[in-house]
Amino acid sequence: MRAYRANILFTPTPQRFEIIEHGFVVVGNDGNVIGTYASLPSEYKTIDVVDFGNQLLMPAMNDLHVHAPQYRNLGIAMDMELLPWLNTYTFPEEAKYKDIKYAERMYRRFVHDLWKLGTMRAAIFATIHPEASCLLADLLREAGMGGMVGLVGMDRNSPNNLSNSVQEAVDGTLRLVEHTASLPLVSAIVTPRFVPSCTPEMLTALGKLANGYRLPVQSHLSENQSEIEWVKELEPKSTCYGDAYRRYGLFGQTPTLMAHCCYTADEELELMRQNHVFAVHCPTSNCNLGSGIAPIRRFMNAGVPVALGSDVSAGSGFSIFRVIHYTLQMSKMKWVAGGHKEAFLSLSEAFWLATKSGGSFFGKVGSFESGYAFDALVVDDSDLNFDNYPIQHRLERYIYLGDDRQLTHRFCQGKEISAPRI
Amino acid sequence: MRAYRANILFTPTPQRFEIIEHGFVVVGNDGNVIGTYASLPSEYKTIDVVDFGNQLLMPAMNDLHVHAPQYRNLGIAMDMELLPWLNTYTFPEEAKYKDIKYAERMYRRFVHDLWKLGTMRAAIFATIHPEASCLLADLLREAGMGGMVGLVGMDRNSPNNLSNSVQEAVDGTLRLVEHTASLPLVSAIVTPRFVPSCTPEMLTALGKLANGYRLPVQSHLSENQSEIEWVKELEPKSTCYGDAYRRYGLFGQTPTLMAHCCYTADEELELMRQNHVFAVHCPTSNCNLGSGIAPIRRFMNAGVPVALGSDVSAGSGFSIFRVIHYTLQMSKMKWVAGGHKEAFLSLSEAFWLATKSGGSFFGKVGSFESGYAFDALVVDDSDLNFDNYPIQHRLERYIYLGDDRQLTHRFCQGKEISAPRI
Repeated sequence: MRAYRANILFTPTPQRFEIIEHGFVVVGNDGNVIGTYASLPSEYKTIDVVDFGNQLLMPAMNDLHVHAPQYRNLGIAMDMELLPWLNTYTFPEEAKYKDIKYAERMYRRFVHDLWKLGTMRAAIFATIHPEASCLLADLLREAGMGGMVGLVGMDRNSPNNLSNSVQEAVDGTLRLVEHTASLPLVSAIVTPRFVPSCTPEMLTALGKLANGYRLPVQSHLSENQSEIEWVKELEPKSTCYGDAYRRYGLFGQTPTLMAHCCYTADEELELMRQNHVFAVHCPTSNCNLGSGIAPIRRFMNAGVPVALGSDVSAGSGFSIFRVIHYTLQMSKMKWVAGGHKEAFLSLSEAFWLATKSGGSFFGKVGSFESGYAFDALVVDDSDLNFDNYPIQHRLERYIYLGDDRQLTHRFCQGKEISAPRI
Repeated sequence: MRAYRANILFTPTPQRFEIIEHGFVVVGNDGNVIGTYASLPSEYKTIDVVDFGNQLLMPAMNDLHVHAPQYRNLGIAMDMELLPWLNTYTFPEEAKYKDIKYAERMYRRFVHDLWKLGTMRAAIFATIHPEASCLLADLLREAGMGGMVGLVGMDRNSPNNLSNSVQEAVDGTLRLVEHTASLPLVSAIVTPRFVPSCTPEMLTALGKLANGYRLPVQSHLSENQSEIEWVKELEPKSTCYGDAYRRYGLFGQTPTLMAHCCYTADEELELMRQNHVFAVHCPTSNCNLGSGIAPIRRFMNAGVPVALGSDVSAGSGFSIFRVIHYTLQMSKMKWVAGGHKEAFLSLSEAFWLATKSGGSFFGKVGSFESGYAFDALVVDDSDLNFDNYPIQHRLERYIYLGDDRQLTHRFCQGKEISAPRI
């Protein structure tokens, strides 16, 4: 058992920050929070206290949508929208991960950069390659970080050198399930790339797999209007894009993440609400590819769960703090485009999406309430706090102006995580 | 005379980068570029060569719209749109600049941060206070950086402690003109805050001042729809917001910068084209305040000059590289919202806006063509260039992923600029 002392911020609810200046978080030997306190209760007087002085202490970031094998393409190739972008830049890069040496070189950097920007847990798309996908799980475990890794199923409209058969996708996923069974914080997730890349046979098999083994699911949904039109042609019996997943058992029958949802409305939204399907908001990516703006306020009002994703490499960086910033900005752009009818998001709401809401996909993660995993960041913002700002303004300035330089300590499930070896 | 060797990138035209790998820029003793060369011509064989190895060498950034006295508010107070934001957060902060000690403390940080992010010239709004405005000009000179400083005129709809009389605005501006007469790279610019803040008498007097002394002008235009409605009420004889400035001699009769122009169309756009009025694009600010997206492609097609601005503190940082990133993203959002009719901007176009197009307001600035001021940045991107990217991808990755850490040298008018004292 141990206590950490600092200026504590977290969001038990989206509406407001819980702030404890120079407060204490007591963490048990299991890595879970016992409680937060303004002064240390007498029963803890004898435990070790780590004092972070005037620094900020907050829940770590959770990235609920990121493509590890697009690491090398970060910051380039931003001149196309989704479908040509996939064919021209993304698929050729992902095909390289057949080579395990190449995969290791890039995946080490990927894990390092997640760490560097303060993300302690992520839901990750790997590639079709089982060996490289298991390696990625190992590298997360080696780092001490948490997450879900998906071996991607894709067997139509995909290049020959980046396609798998239904059997390969099922076997590869099961290999990953087995491989991660002994890893404490890492697990497998069923990952059909998206409807246009998957035949009905692939979707059927992956849906069976998810339901048979009670595995979570991740994919893409309603990112772009050409994609939606294409899905209509490919799956004419489905009443909407989301319904195409639902018919195969891939839409909330087990815990499900759907990235983007820029054009989700009405029926699809209602289906997500009923099935508790997460909308993973990826605003940096949506701006870079000119996809559109997801209706986050509408999701939140309707009770559709929402999380944030970097969507590297269509998203142009790993920082979920940056994604919070874009979430706020894009909610304002939606607000102005919609004639000011739906309120834009507040700072505490966007922070909550990145922490407690996104973290909930991994269990009790993303808050400092009792029983939550102690996933945490310590921020030395003394360079930004040159004029004695109040604590919430210090967090806001860190989000808008800070970067990895201010992150002094990172914790995942109670353990301090040092820089993963590149 | 001296030569600099590095990987050179610049944009003589918006359409494409001029790239010279391991090339030379020869700079005269006046600080202007003599020429760029793949190998050093024989007549320069004896001059000093500074070799920057494998680093990138590019024109420095120009910030054509920034509010120095909003420095302290950076990264906070993002929960309102323009008009309440001004009254609640901005005006109270600017009023503090009556205190010259406070002004010096903040303005030193402001100049330092411009420098830090690679901006060597800026068009700056100060406040109504002559002493602080002259100090800001002195601090730019002390740093060796260039720019224009505007003493702000505001005499209606402004708080009592942040208003000046017409006479005070005229006298203050003239004091700044005189004060900057001997400063090589710094000058004064006539600065009515915006129509809602200025009585017809103020606008008349500032128009006369601009035309009488041939001074440039900067202000705000069509940022927000409530603001536009308000201007219609305040200036019922004007056919559009831009026409309100034009009637007072403040719209291109002398070189003019108009920030934002989110809702500029038709008549106003034609007026800007005819009068060669710059649209200063401030996309980070427009996202933070939920203002809207300026029609940059339409301006460029019509021949309206365009520059980029950080608009600190509605813009949430000093980096014009970041503004380039947002310029690209917002042009894609405009492209998708408009049914893909107007092409989004290319990287070279956005870079050109930040360098040669914006720089042209200061003279021959923003390119490495012969006769241009050697305003330059040296970028050591070795951490980002871990896998031998081509030169243009290296620049693109720097724009998307880099920050001040990669900037190793900064030059303004041929002189290396070291960190300004805070």
